[in-house]
Amino acid sequence: MEKMKIIFLGTGCSNPTKDRNLSSIAIRFNGEWFLFDCAEGTQRQMIKAKVSYMKIQNIFISHFHADHVLGLPGLFATMALHGRDFPVKVFGPKGVKDLIDKSLNLIGLKPNFEIKCVEAKNGVILKGNGFEVSSFPLKHEVPTRGYVFREEGKAGKFSREKALKLEIPEGPLWSKLQKGESVKIGKKSFAPEQVMDYSKGRKGKTIAVVMDTVVSENYLEEISGADILIHESSFTEKMKSRAIETKHSMVKDVAKLAERAEVGKLYLTHISPRHKENEKMENEARMVFAKSYAAKDFMEIEL
Amino acid sequence: MEKMKIIFLGTGCSNPTKDRNLSSIAIRFNGEWFLFDCAEGTQRQMIKAKVSYMKIQNIFISHFHADHVLGLPGLFATMALHGRDFPVKVFGPKGVKDLIDKSLNLIGLKPNFEIKCVEAKNGVILKGNGFEVSSFPLKHEVPTRGYVFREEGKAGKFSREKALKLEIPEGPLWSKLQKGESVKIGKKSFAPEQVMDYSKGRKGKTIAVVMDTVVSENYLEEISGADILIHESSFTEKMKSRAIETKHSMVKDVAKLAERAEVGKLYLTHISPRHKENEKMENEARMVFAKSYAAKDFMEIEL
Repeated sequence: MEKMKIIFLGTGCSNPTKDRNLSSIAIRFNGEWFLFDCAEGTQRQMIKAKVSYMKIQNIFISHFHADHVLGLPGLFATMALHGRDFPVKVFGPKGVKDLIDKSLNLIGLKPNFEIKCVEAKNGVILKGNGFEVSSFPLKHEVPTRGYVFREEGKAGKFSREKALKLEIPEGPLWSKLQKGESVKIGKKSFAPEQVMDYSKGRKGKTIAVVMDTVVSENYLEEISGADILIHESSFTEKMKSRAIETKHSMVKDVAKLAERAEVGKLYLTHISPRHKENEKMENEARMVFAKSYAAKDFMEIEL
Repeated sequence: MEKMKIIFLGTGCSNPTKDRNLSSIAIRFNGEWFLFDCAEGTQRQMIKAKVSYMKIQNIFISHFHADHVLGLPGLFATMALHGRDFPVKVFGPKGVKDLIDKSLNLIGLKPNFEIKCVEAKNGVILKGNGFEVSSFPLKHEVPTRGYVFREEGKAGKFSREKALKLEIPEGPLWSKLQKGESVKIGKKSFAPEQVMDYSKGRKGKTIAVVMDTVVSENYLEEISGADILIHESSFTEKMKSRAIETKHSMVKDVAKLAERAEVGKLYLTHISPRHKENEKMENEARMVFAKSYAAKDFMEIEL
């Protein structure tokens, strides 16, 4: 199977710059693209990054600020123009249906495909072939959601003998264990590791997407152990008052959280137009968490 | 005084391509920028072309299709973010106020500056220091307006003798001729050159912006003698049926019109994503009207 891929379609915030379009991230998994936020100009960034409009089934909106959603009407218009006739799902905070209605209404668009709006609640909001996406609340000026994209683990080798020895009966419990889930028999619980040899399998990869928010412990658990944490980092220490005023994250706080959450790598995005040098930002983060990187438009990560 | 300048901010149609953003044209005159259409991504094109948000007082919208207006909400949001506190005028077909209301409503924007919406009627719709803009109806799937930006002529020397010899009576006709306009007496028409000596003055420059429409004689008079005609040319001859179906112009018809209107130069824009080679399009036009050019994003014209 092809590797999972992340492409940053827009890494700026508030207003675009020569080098940064506004917020959007595409994740490729199993031939499908998952879009996280869709700012103005996203459809054009998609063309440049070779992200197909037609391979998007699911869009996840963090919140309804202009720099995260203004690409939706144009994206829908283009999907319609290309003859799309199968649905697209849009997840977002409460009010997502209203946002989509307004987006269509602005240009009088009546597409031939269904746009299913789903209010993202806490926990798993989407399960698909080999992946699931969960959502959690963030703390910003308006209702905002973070998302975790979680690949299912690849099965290791199941030991029939070990299972029988543990007196776990053949049937649905075996297949649960094979999928990497724990099972219970009476009060006894069994972890998959007790019957699986993972030396030839692998743990599923996890990507957490967090924007916009003040940094908080409230979502530490949700992002814990993520292979990739993508986190908004609008401001450096110098602009602390602005960060507090606008309920945004500061680089150093994000790095501290990344360290506590023991993530694999941290990608800083949603970067203020005032930052001219990525290196400065990276340095500020790396003092705390070494594997910190400032995202750039069209940066690709394979994992 | 600095020269007038045109910058093509977006020369594509329907959906953007790697090389072409969607419709927008900026005209610089006397330190001010005039924006004609504002498709998705226009604000970013403006940054790249160094067109200041804050030096726009007037925006002219041809019609309300997605590929001409979806940059408005983001542009207003950015103007608000930059602390704009002086008004902007938006001209457009009937319904322009509704479009602006929906644009603001989509992102819940309540800017600190006034957005004055003006329904563009026939004739002069705006007069300013040294220029005027007039409007005329076009024929497309929805109500659509064309615009002419007309620089005031620098006064030449008016010859009273020549005027009397041509039997043009003193009064309003004289002042029209002095302003560089043609006049009619019965079936006879008189050009300003017949009574003006421009050797020390100069005729004002004229730019006509025509999109989207089927080519028609109905607006021949309005664009007559323009120094620059910018005209939508979505399709070549090959795609004739598509042009008719969608009420768009074909290159050859546009070139014929340019020739009949005796314009200085013709710039073809609003170019279908299917055109891969500008040269082919230019060739098709130049068979009819030699001074035809396919516009490109960020192309600048000084005049």
